Amino acid sequence: MAHRTWGGRFQEGPDALAARFNASLAFDRALWREDLWQNRVHARMLQAVGLLSEEELKAILEGLDQIEEEIEVGTFPWREDLEDVHMNLEARLMELIGPPGGKLHTARSRNDQVATDLRLFLRAAMDELLALLLEVRRVLVREAEKHLEPPFVLPGYTHLQRAQPILLAHWFLAYYEMLTRDAGRLRDARARLNESPLGAAALAGTGFPIDRHFTAQELGFDRPMRNSLDAVGSRDFALEVLSALNIGMLHLSRLAEELILYSTEEFGFVEVPDAFATGSSIMPQKKNPDILELIRAKAGRVLGALVGLSTVVKGLPLAYNKDLQEDKEPLLDALATYRDSLKLLAALLPGLKWRRERMWRAAEEGFSLATELADYLAEKGLPFREAHHVVGRLVRRLVEEGRVLKDLTLEELREAHPLFAEDALRLLRLETAIHRRRSYGGTAPEAVRARVLEAKEEVGLA
Amino acid sequence: MAHRTWGGRFQEGPDALAARFNASLAFDRALWREDLWQNRVHARMLQAVGLLSEEELKAILEGLDQIEEEIEVGTFPWREDLEDVHMNLEARLMELIGPPGGKLHTARSRNDQVATDLRLFLRAAMDELLALLLEVRRVLVREAEKHLEPPFVLPGYTHLQRAQPILLAHWFLAYYEMLTRDAGRLRDARARLNESPLGAAALAGTGFPIDRHFTAQELGFDRPMRNSLDAVGSRDFALEVLSALNIGMLHLSRLAEELILYSTEEFGFVEVPDAFATGSSIMPQKKNPDILELIRAKAGRVLGALVGLSTVVKGLPLAYNKDLQEDKEPLLDALATYRDSLKLLAALLPGLKWRRERMWRAAEEGFSLATELADYLAEKGLPFREAHHVVGRLVRRLVEEGRVLKDLTLEELREAHPLFAEDALRLLRLETAIHRRRSYGGTAPEAVRARVLEAKEEVGLA
Amino acid sequence: MAHRTWGGRFQEGPDALAARFNASLAFDRALWREDLWQNRVHARMLQAVGLLSEEELKAILEGLDQIEEEIEVGTFPWREDLEDVHMNLEARLMELIGPPGGKLHTARSRNDQVATDLRLFLRAAMDELLALLLEVRRVLVREAEKHLEPPFVLPGYTHLQRAQPILLAHWFLAYYEMLTRDAGRLRDARARLNESPLGAAALAGTGFPIDRHFTAQELGFDRPMRNSLDAVGSRDFALEVLSALNIGMLHLSRLAEELILYSTEEFGFVEVPDAFATGSSIMPQKKNPDILELIRAKAGRVLGALVGLSTVVKGLPLAYNKDLQEDKEPLLDALATYRDSLKLLAALLPGLKWRRERMWRAAEEGFSLATELADYLAEKGLPFREAHHVVGRLVRRLVEEGRVLKDLTLEELREAHPLFAEDALRLLRLETAIHRRRSYGGTAPEAVRARVLEAKEEVGLA
Amino acid sequence: MAHRTWGGRFQEGPDALAARFNASLAFDRALWREDLWQNRVHARMLQAVGLLSEEELKAILEGLDQIEEEIEVGTFPWREDLEDVHMNLEARLMELIGPPGGKLHTARSRNDQVATDLRLFLRAAMDELLALLLEVRRVLVREAEKHLEPPFVLPGYTHLQRAQPILLAHWFLAYYEMLTRDAGRLRDARARLNESPLGAAALAGTGFPIDRHFTAQELGFDRPMRNSLDAVGSRDFALEVLSALNIGMLHLSRLAEELILYSTEEFGFVEVPDAFATGSSIMPQKKNPDILELIRAKAGRVLGALVGLSTVVKGLPLAYNKDLQEDKEPLLDALATYRDSLKLLAALLPGLKWRRERMWRAAEEGFSLATELADYLAEKGLPFREAHHVVGRLVRRLVEEGRVLKDLTLEELREAHPLFAEDALRLLRLETAIHRRRSYGGTAPEAVRARVLEAKEEVGLA
Repeated sequence: MAHRTWGGRFQEGPDALAARFNASLAFDRALWREDLWQNRVHARMLQAVGLLSEEELKAILEGLDQIEEEIEVGTFPWREDLEDVHMNLEARLMELIGPPGGKLHTARSRNDQVATDLRLFLRAAMDELLALLLEVRRVLVREAEKHLEPPFVLPGYTHLQRAQPILLAHWFLAYYEMLTRDAGRLRDARARLNESPLGAAALAGTGFPIDRHFTAQELGFDRPMRNSLDAVGSRDFALEVLSALNIGMLHLSRLAEELILYSTEEFGFVEVPDAFATGSSIMPQKKNPDILELIRAKAGRVLGALVGLSTVVKGLPLAYNKDLQEDKEPLLDALATYRDSLKLLAALLPGLKWRRERMWRAAEEGFSLATELADYLAEKGLPFREAHHVVGRLVRRLVEEGRVLKDLTLEELREAHPLFAEDALRLLRLETAIHRRRSYGGTAPEAVRARVLEAKEEVGLA
Repeated sequence: MAHRTWGGRFQEGPDALAARFNASLAFDRALWREDLWQNRVHARMLQAVGLLSEEELKAILEGLDQIEEEIEVGTFPWREDLEDVHMNLEARLMELIGPPGGKLHTARSRNDQVATDLRLFLRAAMDELLALLLEVRRVLVREAEKHLEPPFVLPGYTHLQRAQPILLAHWFLAYYEMLTRDAGRLRDARARLNESPLGAAALAGTGFPIDRHFTAQELGFDRPMRNSLDAVGSRDFALEVLSALNIGMLHLSRLAEELILYSTEEFGFVEVPDAFATGSSIMPQKKNPDILELIRAKAGRVLGALVGLSTVVKGLPLAYNKDLQEDKEPLLDALATYRDSLKLLAALLPGLKWRRERMWRAAEEGFSLATELADYLAEKGLPFREAHHVVGRLVRRLVEEGRVLKDLTLEELREAHPLFAEDALRLLRLETAIHRRRSYGGTAPEAVRARVLEAKEEVGLA
Repeated sequence: MAHRTWGGRFQEGPDALAARFNASLAFDRALWREDLWQNRVHARMLQAVGLLSEEELKAILEGLDQIEEEIEVGTFPWREDLEDVHMNLEARLMELIGPPGGKLHTARSRNDQVATDLRLFLRAAMDELLALLLEVRRVLVREAEKHLEPPFVLPGYTHLQRAQPILLAHWFLAYYEMLTRDAGRLRDARARLNESPLGAAALAGTGFPIDRHFTAQELGFDRPMRNSLDAVGSRDFALEVLSALNIGMLHLSRLAEELILYSTEEFGFVEVPDAFATGSSIMPQKKNPDILELIRAKAGRVLGALVGLSTVVKGLPLAYNKDLQEDKEPLLDALATYRDSLKLLAALLPGLKWRRERMWRAAEEGFSLATELADYLAEKGLPFREAHHVVGRLVRRLVEEGRVLKDLTLEELREAHPLFAEDALRLLRLETAIHRRRSYGGTAPEAVRARVLEAKEEVGLA
Repeated sequence: MAHRTWGGRFQEGPDALAARFNASLAFDRALWREDLWQNRVHARMLQAVGLLSEEELKAILEGLDQIEEEIEVGTFPWREDLEDVHMNLEARLMELIGPPGGKLHTARSRNDQVATDLRLFLRAAMDELLALLLEVRRVLVREAEKHLEPPFVLPGYTHLQRAQPILLAHWFLAYYEMLTRDAGRLRDARARLNESPLGAAALAGTGFPIDRHFTAQELGFDRPMRNSLDAVGSRDFALEVLSALNIGMLHLSRLAEELILYSTEEFGFVEVPDAFATGSSIMPQKKNPDILELIRAKAGRVLGALVGLSTVVKGLPLAYNKDLQEDKEPLLDALATYRDSLKLLAALLPGLKWRRERMWRAAEEGFSLATELADYLAEKGLPFREAHHVVGRLVRRLVEEGRVLKDLTLEELREAHPLFAEDALRLLRLETAIHRRRSYGGTAPEAVRARVLEAKEEVGLA
């Protein structure tokens, strides 16, 4: 990035600085494939409606082919003074084929050109992210299945206090559900942005007899956009993508946070694979979950990108303003952040070593089974609130005496409330607690197994 | 809000302060209708599966009816010490009907209860906002239609410099397109959030034989949520709503900005109706577009709400944490802001007085028709870039001589380039320029009229 | 807040809605004391320069006294249709004293009036927050001192992995340093905002012979602002306050997070006092650190406020715009949030029960003393990086064998590296490790005690 | 940036991706000068306290000299696999000088090392920005002075409606005041961050007999930081810098917005110099204020950076976490953005061509002098509110009759209110209105001139 050479820039003259400030080549170069594609389609349309001759079209297409090759092999003469990717390709085309190159811009402006490229780019990015999300969702389902038999049990937390035991598989599936919705948001954003601005020209449409349906179709868009001002001046599609990425990263940050907690010595539920942890330069014993920490942190980065572009767009008059050039960097950065985070999790999650015994012990310890007793009384007809109070008193006494639930005798239970009978003792076993929660979506093995089967179908693993 | 009494609070003791800090009644009271509904449905389900007797159900329903009445008429004894709306209703129910009231909480926790209420509330809010959006979109279409004949023409801007003339109707339709997509986002958010968390209990499901499909259906949800941890711990549905509101408000802020500009003395295109403007206390001549300024500003408020909740959720472990209580205030505030802004625009837009002559003159003045000349040459076969340069030189000369495009003679044109012929002069009339842009989505009256007809069908006006 | 009555508002007519949308009374009422003060000072100045007679001044001051009394006792007839606090006071004054009331607005506009009130309000708020910060810093110093003898030791973490043992007192002092800087930022903000906009009038100053130095001095400002446009149009002072609050809340969120972690069953280092925790409606055993969770979460709220106002101000032309009315709500809300959070922590921190043995054991367990061995070798001349590798190998072996550092024999050490001698074994004691870190600012008891003494002087406890 | 090769990254294996994700070299390389400096000082300290021999020190210093040269001439073998700038320099040092290189890390960790580098870097950046701010402030003062005689008058706006005439010089000085405060904030941030974390080691200090005061002094810090946890774990200094940059950019965005408005054809007050404007590819007549639009937009970018880092820090436990690596990119980007924007404005502002006649006409037109009449009546003893109403009625009548203020006759004035006398007519001249506003900080030429003189002294131009 420009700022790397902080010092040097201070010697830069104002004109050079203005040129650099203005130029977008450093980041919109990422759109070169889209720009080439668009150029080809636009040229073919121009020829089809009679604005280019067959020969001109042929020359243009050959020129574009050569440009593609040059870029691929790295010999393309990128020039920052030409400001952006569009002018670079156009200027090179004119160098290569002469005057017909100058006709390619007929009935088009950089305003509709860049909006078209960006939509094409985002559409492809959405597709790739959806593929990655599918991969991570598959990983989550597989991990859920893997830890069902024998069941891995851990404490479920609320307020980060142990609340009730849950299956590890159930925990995996919680994230599966979140990521499924995240995919839904990307899919909706993709559908909504898949319209063609091409042909809106500078802002008002054009008098040339172009065929916007042709270019829209050739570029895989669902339709041409219906209003030229809107086509060149709107960026809600970019904001919607950033909004979806923000929510997606927030989910990943929660997953990362939980794994960071679970891999502390204090929790000790899981070990992060070496490839995703690093040591310390001063403390040889450390195994730091760096990748997870970065994923957690980078949610901030993506939120920052969303805020940045939102603030840019706020109160901006129609149609195109140079301000909109600020759309690309936050988008590109946020897309790459989310993509990398997903890829890393897809590789990291299967490598986690879950420590079944520590998890089990933590789930069993303390009082996470107290709810069972309250439910027991409620099932026997005691109003729930009263049952709650009875058990609350019992727990307080045990805490004072330094005892745990499993130490309770039937007599003590009966003393606490006469509705307790022999079968109440069974409730104090972890297996019982887990198996009881058979309600739809609950953590009982049979409920979780059913959901795993469904989810496998959803992700094409069945 | 609490902060209104800045001074007084300093005398507050820590316990009272902790209670107030903790309490959510001040804002979650907004959910009382949803909580009552949920209570009724939950009670009926409990009876259906045998956890309540017919009599108990009857007592509960009657108690809830009475509570509803008390709230409606304002006699309900709200108590902040009971912390939230749920405990207020439950406590009152127990007062009214005794022990059966205590059974209503069976197989339910405040965690799934509040998530259910919030989804119900947001679903209703989405429906109301969609109705309002439809209303504003109808206004936009009607205004577009109203200004088609005789055509209201104004300069289209890029970089806030006059670029090419456009129809006012075309401008209205640009916002129509944006708001149509905004409605799409709300609709998608509504669809995705319409799942029932009820029955997830605290976090792990329950051992009671509840019927989550029954409650989901009765509450109008599409289905019960499939994972209990996810059901109580996720807030992406709230973030998605805020994201959609953010984008929606950004569009309104752009519309407001343009109208503020257009109503300056300098632009002078439009007059804001008195009901939506105010005078100045010191400058009797002023007519300030306060409402539009506030709409513009409040985009910041909604973005702030989105940032606030995003930051709350970032890195938060599953399942429920008290942090999530911070979801309601930003949501309620953002929903009200967007709703009010839409309502105000629905009333304000038809009252705008457009000053046709000033707009026309501004569109005609200067050089916004220069593109026509460049296009003319391009159509005659001159490469577009060259045509551009020819006209650029011409414009520069006129500027230096203090003349405008309309002053050009055929001789001068021919001198500039031999391809210019007599018909080129026609291009320098505003009507011609407007009528030329017939491309799909362009600003030519016939293109705009076609779109108005379509749009009328879309909003049920046809 | 308005949004509480979501449903009802839909029946509101556009005019009533516009009036409500426009009105700021609901929140700027908080400024009534400042407005009264300003009115008195402005009136006295007007009289001093001959714009009011003695009698008029007397009438005005008596009227203002009565208004103060009415507000204090709650009988003041607030009218939302008068829009804001200024017009409410002025209108009431005219009711009470007739024509002279109408002269009070001479040479003043609501633009400079509201800017003056807001600065007075923020100055007072800064003073109160600084007093509270001093209180919390005292608490932190006292807690540090309290836990020095016998020393409370806990693991210091990096990457949330145990790194090296530290003193609890050292941990308290880390937050002391942060809050000291937070106070510095508030002090700087207070100093910079303490200038008087009064007399800037609408935007350009006034032709009346006012004395801005007089009013500035009487209101306790350091000087009158030097440019009238700046005086009424700038809000950087508000943004600076919000920025300082944001950083302050981020520090509190980190403190809250650590205490939440330390109070989990897994860490078990501390118990949150009952007054600041709550139970669960379904799990009688839970003790949820609600207050700490809310403090953690509310950092998001304050960041949201900063983003909101930043976005409002972005790209806003001079001088006053109605947009600026959006400054008060985020400010008031953020100030109250920070104030309450500080007050709660001042009460909560001394009530924490630290569990010395669990902390000690955690600090001792595992390999947090491995650095000592590496340092030992380095002190004996082995290049640090090599020493690091030697110990790294040793630790890996122990982990594989399921042993801990304390199990090491002298022979094993010597085998690992010949530089190890008998005194190396001493290093594996927690006390030694703690006492070694005597560098300035380090965690050794003598270093920490020295800092406690300094800090006591800084906060006036010595 | 990484995202430029979106496509290619998809072929990347998880290990390579993890390494890249983890590595900070791409951006922390910017800190190489600071790292070298720190290394030298740290080495000298180690020697002074006996941890390095004279020879070892000599070897290290020579090695560091060579590294500096290699970096300067571009031959330094940067290796991304070494992760960051620190390890790159250290590894190269060991290559160059062998074992003594390994001793340089004694009593230091990357945690205190990076915190030290970053503070040094930011201190230098603050100094450079302060120099630039001084330059821009000088430009503003010079421009103010330049437009005093003959006076350039333009309408002052509130709500973007013409309110009262002001001097252009007064407008320049308004921004001068804002930028002066912006400099104050940077200065405060610089003062607060100028403390040395060096020697805090990983988090707890060190047992080596280091001299933190020595290194602090040599590196130009005011003092060593007093708490090791705070030294390595805090980032409020970075957030404070970002907060100051955010406010600074918001001011620039307002300036940019006003110039964009003033350079529209509609306002027509100013022409942006060619070097800072660009043409349109399709509209030869356009002169787009691109640089100003980008400055306006980039306020969003800097706000995004602040939000990003705030969100990273929120709820982060002490001490160092990998999350903190996310501090550099937003900082570097925001610093460069603000720096470039200042440099561009310093060059752009003196090149603006102000169109005195259009400004004058705009200030005179309409009713911006109506306040004068109201003030006149007030000065004659009419209560201000009543005076306001009298003039309001007058204005309304003129508007209805299509007349302007200057058309008023003495008879009409007297009819409106008997207090009007002959001298009232003079008020309707622009010069009178401007000259009247002599209050301190007002827009009268004498007040503005006085302020220009003061300001010249402040910036060393006198």
